[in-house]
Amino acid sequence: MWNKVEARSMEISMEDEDSRKKRKNVLKLPKKMKKILKNLWNVGKEDPRRVIHAMKVGVALTLVSLLYLMEPFFKGVVKNALWAVMTVVVVLEFSAGATLRKGLNRGLGTIIAGSLAFFIEWVAIHSGKVLGGIFIGTSIFLIGSTITYMRFIPYIKKNYDYGMLVFLLTFNLITVSSYRVDTVIKIAHARLYTIGIGIGICLVMSLLVFPIWSGDDLHKSTFTKLQGLSRCIEACVHEYFEDKERDQESSDSESDDEDLIYKGYKTVLDSKSADEALAMFAKWELRNTRLCHKFPSQQYIKVGSVLRKFSYTVVALHGCLQTEIQTPRSIRILFKDPCVRLAGEICKVLSELSESIQNRRHCSPEILSDSLEAALKDLNSTIKSQPKLFLGSNLHRQTVEQNDTVSPLPLNSVVSLSSLRSVKKSAATGEKRRLRKQLSKIAVMKSLEFSEALPFAAFASLLMEMVARLDTVIDEVEELGTIACFKEYDKTVEVRVEKPVNLVVGD
Amino acid sequence: MWNKVEARSMEISMEDEDSRKKRKNVLKLPKKMKKILKNLWNVGKEDPRRVIHAMKVGVALTLVSLLYLMEPFFKGVVKNALWAVMTVVVVLEFSAGATLRKGLNRGLGTIIAGSLAFFIEWVAIHSGKVLGGIFIGTSIFLIGSTITYMRFIPYIKKNYDYGMLVFLLTFNLITVSSYRVDTVIKIAHARLYTIGIGIGICLVMSLLVFPIWSGDDLHKSTFTKLQGLSRCIEACVHEYFEDKERDQESSDSESDDEDLIYKGYKTVLDSKSADEALAMFAKWELRNTRLCHKFPSQQYIKVGSVLRKFSYTVVALHGCLQTEIQTPRSIRILFKDPCVRLAGEICKVLSELSESIQNRRHCSPEILSDSLEAALKDLNSTIKSQPKLFLGSNLHRQTVEQNDTVSPLPLNSVVSLSSLRSVKKSAATGEKRRLRKQLSKIAVMKSLEFSEALPFAAFASLLMEMVARLDTVIDEVEELGTIACFKEYDKTVEVRVEKPVNLVVGD
Repeated sequence: MWNKVEARSMEISMEDEDSRKKRKNVLKLPKKMKKILKNLWNVGKEDPRRVIHAMKVGVALTLVSLLYLMEPFFKGVVKNALWAVMTVVVVLEFSAGATLRKGLNRGLGTIIAGSLAFFIEWVAIHSGKVLGGIFIGTSIFLIGSTITYMRFIPYIKKNYDYGMLVFLLTFNLITVSSYRVDTVIKIAHARLYTIGIGIGICLVMSLLVFPIWSGDDLHKSTFTKLQGLSRCIEACVHEYFEDKERDQESSDSESDDEDLIYKGYKTVLDSKSADEALAMFAKWELRNTRLCHKFPSQQYIKVGSVLRKFSYTVVALHGCLQTEIQTPRSIRILFKDPCVRLAGEICKVLSELSESIQNRRHCSPEILSDSLEAALKDLNSTIKSQPKLFLGSNLHRQTVEQNDTVSPLPLNSVVSLSSLRSVKKSAATGEKRRLRKQLSKIAVMKSLEFSEALPFAAFASLLMEMVARLDTVIDEVEELGTIACFKEYDKTVEVRVEKPVNLVVGD
Repeated sequence: MWNKVEARSMEISMEDEDSRKKRKNVLKLPKKMKKILKNLWNVGKEDPRRVIHAMKVGVALTLVSLLYLMEPFFKGVVKNALWAVMTVVVVLEFSAGATLRKGLNRGLGTIIAGSLAFFIEWVAIHSGKVLGGIFIGTSIFLIGSTITYMRFIPYIKKNYDYGMLVFLLTFNLITVSSYRVDTVIKIAHARLYTIGIGIGICLVMSLLVFPIWSGDDLHKSTFTKLQGLSRCIEACVHEYFEDKERDQESSDSESDDEDLIYKGYKTVLDSKSADEALAMFAKWELRNTRLCHKFPSQQYIKVGSVLRKFSYTVVALHGCLQTEIQTPRSIRILFKDPCVRLAGEICKVLSELSESIQNRRHCSPEILSDSLEAALKDLNSTIKSQPKLFLGSNLHRQTVEQNDTVSPLPLNSVVSLSSLRSVKKSAATGEKRRLRKQLSKIAVMKSLEFSEALPFAAFASLLMEMVARLDTVIDEVEELGTIACFKEYDKTVEVRVEKPVNLVVGD
């Protein structure tokens, strides 16, 4: 009896479980829908031009479809109008440069493939039915293999990949679809005509209706990266000299800082392929030629690559915040002011460079003035004025050395990691990490050594290295200004509000 | 008379110039041809599978063309065979995974678009001629815009971009090409049939004839990167402690080293997008599922990202070789042996990890043993045993400080850069750089300061940081071993030849 009741109650509870699950799933559905809708909304919010582009494609497709719908008026066209639709779907890209590039690739590919197919048909017809078939089969194999192989060549892959594809497609379709030369000519004619209509619609939509220029995007991406790096360095230095004791209150702002730093250099480091694509599209945008000789896409690429090199030091600087061995706060605080000042000067130069590119004017001569130099001297003399620290640690070292067998070695915080791992290999990683942290904390508290001054040395050295690399960045941005015919810097026009250095370090 | 003769001789010389140019151009032509041919050869030499892939495409195209050539046998198919050709040209990709992905995208896109188009046709027919036309036009606009907009969503862009394109294409072609439902069904049927043939040929070519697996490529790329990093660190340390006096003889090997270092970390840093693409393709390759539950493409991506983080320190280490301020060789040589030893141990661990992945076995427990720990301790105690160096520089500092106005500041080698720039802004960059180098050399010779010990401190600190980050790399590779069911490490099977540490530093 008892068992029956239990089983019954279990059954009920299982049924409950089931219905609860179902209800949950039903409740989840609107949530999922909400998430998808939010995702869609964000895509548009990030870059509203995406909405415009989507509308443009819709309009272009409707226009090209009218060719069919108005069948009576365009009788000759309709039969091949599928090529116009195909062209619009495939060629109309986000930016004007990309559309021009694809359109040209498609046009050229079709024309060359058509001519070649025409020639091969001609030869095949004059060789008899069987021999002609063999000839066509062989040429399809050879041309298919050759074109596919050529698409691996980096230069062709970069510029004419799509053209090669269209060539292969058109060649095969024409070669194989018919044996009579007059048909081939007719097909080629009709196809070119409709593809022409398609490309025409694409060009109107892309160049005249809310055009989107890759050159502008490249320009914007360049000065945004400079701004990002500036903010990133600011946050790095802020975090390095921050009061770590107030962990609980400021953990939110700290993770915000971490995000900012990571995003800042991540954007720069990951920008390579996107920038190269933009530069390639920008080459096709003739509009940019109007103002100066040529849109200097190559120089933008150069600025990008110099910036990436610069950002490696930023990454290393960020690494200084995350090392297992840390220079104690008491030592760091000694160097806070000059470090903050130097970083502030670096940020000022980066911001000025960014503004210079943004407003398409030459850099202010002020950024080439003495404040960076002075800040560098300041840091250097501060380092020199603290000899006791390093003397002190050396003396301390000698006392430690005398009872070397008893006292722990200063680096055991790192050393213990690997020994720990070999012992507790099977333990969960989470627990391992917690243990590790405890051990290193104990080690830090026990000894203050020269090896602990090393991380700060690395930090200071990186700041100085940054100044040296900043030089090449300035060179390339100035070169960009010269090539792109930036306007002269005019102090009287631009009333500069001298902003205070933005480094508010928690004190 | 004289003038005439002069003019005549000038004319002759100009003609000469012209013909010489022409001859040169003629001579250049074979050279250019040679260059192009060499380029083609290199593309195949880099990866011979490219040649195989090209042949495969050729064979597939010939096969699909047979459908046309044998017209009498396949009467129903021929009319729509262009879709089979198109499918082969577009779907047959380099690796099996990419082909499967594109094939599925194409199939799904066609089927869904066909169904939707069928439904819209049905509604349009039942709404009368004018209203139906308006209805079709509106739906073309709405679906065109929506699909184009959805292609911006990152998840869809990554997985279904091509499917969306095919959907749009098929939908438009079917919707617009006819008003009668029975025709639509016929078209859809024939198209699906021929696309099926195309996809079938692609699958046979891609999965059965010399298949190329993205999973294998990802696997190979991962352990190659580990090897590259190991060699890169080796070369860095080698160059740092090398005898710079022997500039002339060893300049060749030095630039080789530079290349090696740069290539080593460049490959790792640039691998992100390529690895992600490979991982995405690998997901579709079911073959890899056979051995274990699932091909762990996500874990490979994780190893890649941890390696990128690790390589940031390598970049910073390389930066130490290129700084404007350098620690004098006399100081560096004091720390050579322990640094070389520590770097050697790091390289050994990286090589072992690489071998472990390559042979799909777990790591040797030896790499988790004490030698890395010992090397770390060794470097630390060497740094501690040289207190005179830093004491010395501090004492030196005090004497310098007494006549501070006379002696140059130690950091003027860097400082001078910016002041130099502001003075000689218009000078050519090349000359500027030469001047700069001279100035910094003079500055280094003049003063030996604490600030000059900083770069070495950064170098040592980076080596130690590397050890800490190596830990996370080991963790992720071990995790990979667990997920991918690597075989156990078996000492008895693998007779390990204990190689001596490969760091031969010029001495």
